[in-house]
Amino acid sequence: MTSTRATLIQVAERAGVSLASTSRALHGTGASKAMVERVRAAAAELGYSADAIGRSLRLKKTSQIAFAVADIGNPVYVEIMRGIHEVLAPHGYRVVVMSTGDTAASTTELMHSLHGGFVDGMIVIPLRTDDELIEQIGRAPVPVVVIGRAMSDRGISSVSTDSAAGIGAAVQHVVSLGRRRIGFLNGPLDTTPGSSRQRGFDEAVSAKDFAAKTDVEVATDFTVAAGIEAARKLLDRPHRPDAIVAANDLLAIGAVRAARELGLSIPRDVAVTGMDDTELGQVFLPRLTSVSLGSAERGRAAARLMLGLTDDADAPARQISVGTELFVRESTVDQNVEDAE
Amino acid sequence: MTSTRATLIQVAERAGVSLASTSRALHGTGASKAMVERVRAAAAELGYSADAIGRSLRLKKTSQIAFAVADIGNPVYVEIMRGIHEVLAPHGYRVVVMSTGDTAASTTELMHSLHGGFVDGMIVIPLRTDDELIEQIGRAPVPVVVIGRAMSDRGISSVSTDSAAGIGAAVQHVVSLGRRRIGFLNGPLDTTPGSSRQRGFDEAVSAKDFAAKTDVEVATDFTVAAGIEAARKLLDRPHRPDAIVAANDLLAIGAVRAARELGLSIPRDVAVTGMDDTELGQVFLPRLTSVSLGSAERGRAAARLMLGLTDDADAPARQISVGTELFVRESTVDQNVEDAE
Repeated sequence: MTSTRATLIQVAERAGVSLASTSRALHGTGASKAMVERVRAAAAELGYSADAIGRSLRLKKTSQIAFAVADIGNPVYVEIMRGIHEVLAPHGYRVVVMSTGDTAASTTELMHSLHGGFVDGMIVIPLRTDDELIEQIGRAPVPVVVIGRAMSDRGISSVSTDSAAGIGAAVQHVVSLGRRRIGFLNGPLDTTPGSSRQRGFDEAVSAKDFAAKTDVEVATDFTVAAGIEAARKLLDRPHRPDAIVAANDLLAIGAVRAARELGLSIPRDVAVTGMDDTELGQVFLPRLTSVSLGSAERGRAAARLMLGLTDDADAPARQISVGTELFVRESTVDQNVEDAE
Repeated sequence: MTSTRATLIQVAERAGVSLASTSRALHGTGASKAMVERVRAAAAELGYSADAIGRSLRLKKTSQIAFAVADIGNPVYVEIMRGIHEVLAPHGYRVVVMSTGDTAASTTELMHSLHGGFVDGMIVIPLRTDDELIEQIGRAPVPVVVIGRAMSDRGISSVSTDSAAGIGAAVQHVVSLGRRRIGFLNGPLDTTPGSSRQRGFDEAVSAKDFAAKTDVEVATDFTVAAGIEAARKLLDRPHRPDAIVAANDLLAIGAVRAARELGLSIPRDVAVTGMDDTELGQVFLPRLTSVSLGSAERGRAAARLMLGLTDDADAPARQISVGTELFVRESTVDQNVEDAE
């Protein structure tokens, strides 16, 4: 069973002494014998390990779970992390955030580092995946949960979402608004999110009754800067798009910026949709229409899978899928009545 | 001397075999004897430790440096982290990001956890500080570098910046634009950044020839949501400000949103300045005028101090101060010539 772990603060409160005294007493540096006894008694009552290092070496318990992503600057990861933290913190786990780097090889190297024994488990979002990485995940010395594509066939627990369907919802939305020249602004196609979003776009526009013209531009990265550059190309085409469906909120913000540079009005001249429904997109002007992929819920689901695996490393792998939802805001529908008239 | 550490990828390349084979060979799981010899030879040539766990236990070397901040969602920390990573990565260190929590006590608890031996050092930005925390930092079992207020008197290496002077520069800028009712939108005063920014504002407006009226509103947190709420109050005063100087970019974005809700034009009706010069502020519409506190440079400076301390834990504590710079953009000066006429 997973147990809720006591914190140093709780031990100090129980012993009725300061945090500094509690720390000194537990590490035997400069505390009186009476103080040491008092603090150790409080620690024992609460089940707090008085020797974190010894515990760590003997039991390989670090009370830490790693969360590894390619780009810590992408706000979607902050929201996933909050979901992870929400579930793990009550169980006494700290979440430490690490970078996978951009490649499957750098992610494989990070998996290898788990042999260092510094965390009790890892929740990872690989940007790019290959067979070596999947093999390394399968052989990891601590539980690993993947957020990304489902890994049922490899015996790896994973949390996925249907981003392809989400792109379809965004395309349908702009078509329903009467837009007939749809530009798709995707990120690199050799990444997990880029390939699934491309599939979603291709499926949406191959529908029998699909009437709009389409165009695709692939940005070099899922960032605002790459989005500006790629959107400029989209907007420079002979048949300029009247709607841009972007593969994430950062690319969508890049599209808004590129359109403004050309003196275009959002949404009148170009409607723009994002994906991930980040807080950044919600505070941006115009507020972004965006497809939520359930960021916080994916984090919570991954954390719950992790708790199951830290309890029982031999528990069978599980797959969870989280739903999507389109949020319509100012970047596609002008909500200022005066301007709309 | 600090040495550049070889990576698993480099060992695999030197041995001319796959990453997965390299990992298997180094951990003795399912590799042929010939493969083990080949990989170990490559590892030895490169000085790569073939037994990361054993190395970790014996030498207490983890090849990891922690970066601990209160709110991982604040984009300024992402930029500081990039600076840290830039300096530490060539030395083979991974950066792991952790949360200090909001209080001095939770930060003290995190310092205590360093006894767990999971990192070789920690760079920390305490949001709130007390004597217990400073004592705990001084007694930490691994090197600690503080980004925040200078800690020269406590023998702790630190990187600071003059955010008070930065607020002064922002106040001067809006006054030079002819604004005469300045609202200061600060964060909580019991925090390190809140108290120094308040001091900067008080000093700026106490100058003998200072002619503008002023008003202050303190948000409950350094976030967009708290900024919207506090800015509404500022803009609801009998003498509505014609300029808002915000204590960071997130509060400034909140101020822009609150002003827009009231139908006010930025910068015509209200000029808004931020602080931290984040990428978020640079892509926001309007682009934010903001005071840079040298985020990436503070990260690089802290990382260089850390390298010095991991080389020699008894090296004397050093203090580094990083300069500030005001970047003027659309939120205070309308750069659209047509509109300005």
